[in-house]
Amino acid sequence: MHDISENPRIEADVIVVGAGFAGITAARELKQAGKTVALLEARPRLGGRSLSRPIGEGKVVELGCEFNGQPDSISARTGRSVGIGSHKVYDRGHRLIDDGGRISRWKGMAPKVSPATLVDFGQAALRIERMRREVPQDAPWQAPHAARWDRETMYSWTRRNLRTRGGRALMGLMIEAGMAAAPADVSLLHVLNYANGTGGFRAMTTVTGGVLENRFDGGSHGLALRLAESVADETYVGAAVRRIRHAGDKVTVTGDGFEAVGGRVVMAVPVPLADRIDYDPPLPAYRDQLSQRMTMGSAIKYLALYDEPFWRADGLTGMVISPTSPVRATIDSCPPDGTPGVLTAFVTGPPARELAQLSAGGRRAVVLGELARYFGPRAGRPYELIEQNWMAEPYTRGCYHAYAPPGLYTEYGPALREPVGRIHWAGAESVPHEFGSMSGAIYSGRRAATEIVALDTGERPEHLLPTAPLKAKGGN
Amino acid sequence: MHDISENPRIEADVIVVGAGFAGITAARELKQAGKTVALLEARPRLGGRSLSRPIGEGKVVELGCEFNGQPDSISARTGRSVGIGSHKVYDRGHRLIDDGGRISRWKGMAPKVSPATLVDFGQAALRIERMRREVPQDAPWQAPHAARWDRETMYSWTRRNLRTRGGRALMGLMIEAGMAAAPADVSLLHVLNYANGTGGFRAMTTVTGGVLENRFDGGSHGLALRLAESVADETYVGAAVRRIRHAGDKVTVTGDGFEAVGGRVVMAVPVPLADRIDYDPPLPAYRDQLSQRMTMGSAIKYLALYDEPFWRADGLTGMVISPTSPVRATIDSCPPDGTPGVLTAFVTGPPARELAQLSAGGRRAVVLGELARYFGPRAGRPYELIEQNWMAEPYTRGCYHAYAPPGLYTEYGPALREPVGRIHWAGAESVPHEFGSMSGAIYSGRRAATEIVALDTGERPEHLLPTAPLKAKGGN
Repeated sequence: MHDISENPRIEADVIVVGAGFAGITAARELKQAGKTVALLEARPRLGGRSLSRPIGEGKVVELGCEFNGQPDSISARTGRSVGIGSHKVYDRGHRLIDDGGRISRWKGMAPKVSPATLVDFGQAALRIERMRREVPQDAPWQAPHAARWDRETMYSWTRRNLRTRGGRALMGLMIEAGMAAAPADVSLLHVLNYANGTGGFRAMTTVTGGVLENRFDGGSHGLALRLAESVADETYVGAAVRRIRHAGDKVTVTGDGFEAVGGRVVMAVPVPLADRIDYDPPLPAYRDQLSQRMTMGSAIKYLALYDEPFWRADGLTGMVISPTSPVRATIDSCPPDGTPGVLTAFVTGPPARELAQLSAGGRRAVVLGELARYFGPRAGRPYELIEQNWMAEPYTRGCYHAYAPPGLYTEYGPALREPVGRIHWAGAESVPHEFGSMSGAIYSGRRAATEIVALDTGERPEHLLPTAPLKAKGGN
Repeated sequence: MHDISENPRIEADVIVVGAGFAGITAARELKQAGKTVALLEARPRLGGRSLSRPIGEGKVVELGCEFNGQPDSISARTGRSVGIGSHKVYDRGHRLIDDGGRISRWKGMAPKVSPATLVDFGQAALRIERMRREVPQDAPWQAPHAARWDRETMYSWTRRNLRTRGGRALMGLMIEAGMAAAPADVSLLHVLNYANGTGGFRAMTTVTGGVLENRFDGGSHGLALRLAESVADETYVGAAVRRIRHAGDKVTVTGDGFEAVGGRVVMAVPVPLADRIDYDPPLPAYRDQLSQRMTMGSAIKYLALYDEPFWRADGLTGMVISPTSPVRATIDSCPPDGTPGVLTAFVTGPPARELAQLSAGGRRAVVLGELARYFGPRAGRPYELIEQNWMAEPYTRGCYHAYAPPGLYTEYGPALREPVGRIHWAGAESVPHEFGSMSGAIYSGRRAATEIVALDTGERPEHLLPTAPLKAKGGN
């Protein structure tokens, strides 16, 4: 790994911009295919939205993406291929649901809510499951009812299809906790597509059997770094890209004090960040208007560290869900051996936007107050509270991922991955399937590499794509 | 007016970025208040989204914003203050409505559609009028039902509140032709706010009594240039801004080969373009996430030039509306003396996105074919057809203006104009009232100037704002 200031003039067959899972994968695969590559990263570190913090004894807590879903997810399989296994997230005991201050325990499929709420939410979830099966994972805009489903917000759909206050609140929570966006932000089609990527609507927020079931040994960030090892010589940090000149038969990628020249470029950053690069010549309107429209979700992640996971002794899994609290969800994020105790608190969607405007002390007080309300006074006194506000990170600008507002898929969908001349698009949001996840990012990196390699062989890239993305279940 | 390359080091009290109506106005007012200013424009020309093309004999056609609404609009009053009057758009005779190929003439309030369609559209329009009166022009997010109105798309509202196919089509046309966005793109609250700015929902697409009633003598671009005369010495073109450093007590604005240092900066460019600047330190999440979410509409404007306005002899005004053709609307854009004949064809919303993907010849064939279908074969043979695709302009990237997707106003609204330290926001989209129009742009420039002047006097800027924006009717 080099600092770009030491190598301010680079040449390679392919320049890859962004060293998250997508960019690292693209660089690896291109190198393996015999191409010379240069992987440029704006930050001083690799891994994108994955980020670990060491907490002693070789253990880490995860400030970014954390869950890899089911054992057959693309990310889990990738982990195993480089010797990184997974372990189950703690899921024994009762979960909690908080509804405007009334906290109750629950177990099994459904929280303790009124039968009317349960029936209402259940029928809606079933309807979503039926609809999502009609959405092609590779091209959601080709679903039979794509136009209609893409033109309304998830909020409107919920108002029309759920009758109870409680049912609507649960549906809102699914979107806010599962996607870090408000139901008004996203189209119904986006939710259906997203649910396809996670292996089903319920799986979006489920531990056992869902996207939250497993975590990488040593953390997701560790996997990113392991994968990056094979392209260490080709990796340059501190390289914030500002301009891409792509006329003629070369691409020139420039930033403060550096220049990288290649035959092609892979943009492996979230669409809203790719939008902030100066392209010369300008991108066609079709792609430009897509990138204007995609936006990052809103999430702040908190990690509260305790001497031990005391909630387990109380028969609790550590999971809380709440449609009313700014802490929309919590989960047990302890290391595999259970020490120290770690609770993750997710502040997502509108509460993240509101909380971000308080002082650091104000935010801390709110989060600790909510943890104490859920798990008792001890939860309000962690020995450390770590805050990671992804919205404030200049090279991320939101989490968990970008989302599609109404109209985006049907008006601009194909522009998500259609190359513009010598510019190829990767990133977790450039694939409709397993959208926004580590798996999606890895898949997108392979797809971009495959596209470029295919240009040499003359084969159509579709024939070269990695197998079985359709059946694999995603993670986050 | 200078080229920035001749003056690559500038200092002034205030740096104004963008020389459209907003930036020109801000620079004028600041100078008048005794500040030194520098007005930076990326293009080689001034005027932003206003643009004239000379067609001989001192006449022009207008490739950008063209209509200034009613005589009491802010832009019309501004014109008169510098000796530029207005003239009426030709509106005698019958208009045409095209519905899937069936073309019929109409006059008065309503096109010739079935009584059921008429009643259906009428009740919906009335409902919109009632709702919009509840929306405060300065802060639409404070409307009593703001949350609900902001969470659904105009498409959803139309589906729920109109019953006939024809009524829904007309409602869609109002949004697409009036706002250059699809009904699925915008929230109901945005439509209500927009209708407030135009003086009523019907006025959005109306000639006599609406926003299309008047045009500036010599064109809107002429007004922009006239206004810019008083800051000619302070104006620098070819100055595309890439970075704004705003730590400490100075603002440093840089681009390729130039640097402008000031005490404050006014960003007078559309929000989606302000989003593409590198801010150091980064903008707070609240503003950053706003700018990720706002996006420019989709419009291509065509001007067809003929020896004479032959449609007038046929008893036609030159206006067509069509919910089904890619040419959603046309209007008579002849110079005041009626020579040459000029028809403007608006391709807006989804058709603009589709058409932009054809070849130049393909687009031309489609537009001429539609004009011939509306006005006879002669209309298909103009002596010149001018195309202006605002989506492809790198320093505009869409028209007529930016719009608010669902959730934007209620989640991020105040960030539209809340200064970030030494950065002040202007631009037609930074004012909720008369949003997106020349009037809105001019008002926003005054507001930003007033904000900065107020910092010296210690008065609250609200007390210093120009009078009566609430009652004035806007234009486009």
